[in-house]
Amino acid sequence: MKPMRTELDCLVCLYRQALNTARLATNSTKLQRRILSETAALLPRLAPGLSPPENSIRLYRLIARLSGNPDPYAELKKAGNEHALRLRDRVKELISTAHDPLYTAILFAIAGNIIDHGAPRDFDLDQTIDECLRRTPAINDYAQLKEDLKGAKNILYLGDNCGELVFDGLLIELLPGMVTLALKEKPIINDALPADAKLCGLDKICRVISNGTDCPGTPLNLCSEEFKAAMAETDLIISKGQGNFETLSHLSGGPPLYFLLTTKCPIVAQRAGEAAGTAAGIVNNGDTLLMRARF
Amino acid sequence: MKPMRTELDCLVCLYRQALNTARLATNSTKLQRRILSETAALLPRLAPGLSPPENSIRLYRLIARLSGNPDPYAELKKAGNEHALRLRDRVKELISTAHDPLYTAILFAIAGNIIDHGAPRDFDLDQTIDECLRRTPAINDYAQLKEDLKGAKNILYLGDNCGELVFDGLLIELLPGMVTLALKEKPIINDALPADAKLCGLDKICRVISNGTDCPGTPLNLCSEEFKAAMAETDLIISKGQGNFETLSHLSGGPPLYFLLTTKCPIVAQRAGEAAGTAAGIVNNGDTLLMRARF
Repeated sequence: MKPMRTELDCLVCLYRQALNTARLATNSTKLQRRILSETAALLPRLAPGLSPPENSIRLYRLIARLSGNPDPYAELKKAGNEHALRLRDRVKELISTAHDPLYTAILFAIAGNIIDHGAPRDFDLDQTIDECLRRTPAINDYAQLKEDLKGAKNILYLGDNCGELVFDGLLIELLPGMVTLALKEKPIINDALPADAKLCGLDKICRVISNGTDCPGTPLNLCSEEFKAAMAETDLIISKGQGNFETLSHLSGGPPLYFLLTTKCPIVAQRAGEAAGTAAGIVNNGDTLLMRARF
Repeated sequence: MKPMRTELDCLVCLYRQALNTARLATNSTKLQRRILSETAALLPRLAPGLSPPENSIRLYRLIARLSGNPDPYAELKKAGNEHALRLRDRVKELISTAHDPLYTAILFAIAGNIIDHGAPRDFDLDQTIDECLRRTPAINDYAQLKEDLKGAKNILYLGDNCGELVFDGLLIELLPGMVTLALKEKPIINDALPADAKLCGLDKICRVISNGTDCPGTPLNLCSEEFKAAMAETDLIISKGQGNFETLSHLSGGPPLYFLLTTKCPIVAQRAGEAAGTAAGIVNNGDTLLMRARF
């Protein structure tokens, strides 16, 4: 399967993201307008053949440069982490008393993925947590994952956003072998950085590295040597969220690769249906997925 | 109150509209991409001081020129008219047997306004019709309208979209005096033209003119002499839909002016709250309004 491309819908979404981000980056409406103008000039120059997260690197760098604000989502990230940390004990209790703690932890890790300020949906984390126990992933390869985990000694866990990172931690605690958590190197949207992992205490339960990028995903050709070495050593990959899926859904060969995500746009929902080998339209926008990559 | 401006959110909305329209205008994805590129070049050049409908004239002309398709919404307009015509007898029966037929006709005319392919919401007309009898306008100046209609001899009715035009006809049948229905001169989104009025039989119950523009609203400085003469002669104006509201909400003086609309974006909802003199936030996106302009 070919790598994901930046579709026309993605351009519209990126323009909308530019406005959201401009408003977080600066209070000056004049500067916000300039950011939108420069974004409009950038959009036609993006490479259709690259995935949306790869193209978004240029957009977010542009906004950071124009606004002088390298981390517009800093406050939202902090609030997301703190909110999730307040829920941590309650969720941990729900997991440990569940019939299948691993499965329940996965459901929470996927539900936590709703926290993403780059996506076009509002969210309510508390409601999501209540709902997530009732939701069944539209694609659910849990049985295979459980089997594959039996032999796993080195697990690579690709993190996504702040906030949900706390629930990633609760899942990582239940994984066998050694876990390496790969986050982003520099601020990009509300994606978690190694500093967030430390803040949320994940550095105490696993090895934390960055993938070397400021991409809201995992574009292998841009990733650091350290990250590539971790990829080469691992015998199972867990990939969280849309951005990692968008940059990795075309991977072939390699160790078992599991995508845990909530779909937040119709383009990704369609791609997920295709990637799972199901008929188009099986996966809807807003679905949760626990999906093993079919190589 | 100052004329409505094109806000940054409106630019994002126009870009989204460009993609929707490009897809209707041509099957060539290459051409669709070119339309989005040219739209991106246009957006920073739009005048922030003009209303969104006025600025959208340039956008829709650009798409018509690039695609060679002067009326991308032709099929949707036809389907909208036909759908509404099939519902006509059922709605007319509901109106004539209602406790207050005029009020019920107004509710239907407002609910019909949901049919607008320029707006970011999906719609379901049948469901809307069932719902509309249960919905109370968030701002409801019906008592004043009834009073003002008593002395009215010349009513100017500013139409909006195809489809809802049929329900406009059912309301116009109940209005006193002479009614002039003003539509658009040339194709713009799914706005009704005089030809649509003829198709839906409205030419038999009122005088039908155009406002002389290809604007999805009523920008007075661009309107024809015929339309301006109709404005000068009227003693009550009924204005349907968002586009007319966006281009006329700042009017001061003149005859009583009533806006009948469903709000389809947060910017218009906020403006409507301000125009009604209520505290901001009173009108929500998706509300229906029957609102007399406060001069």
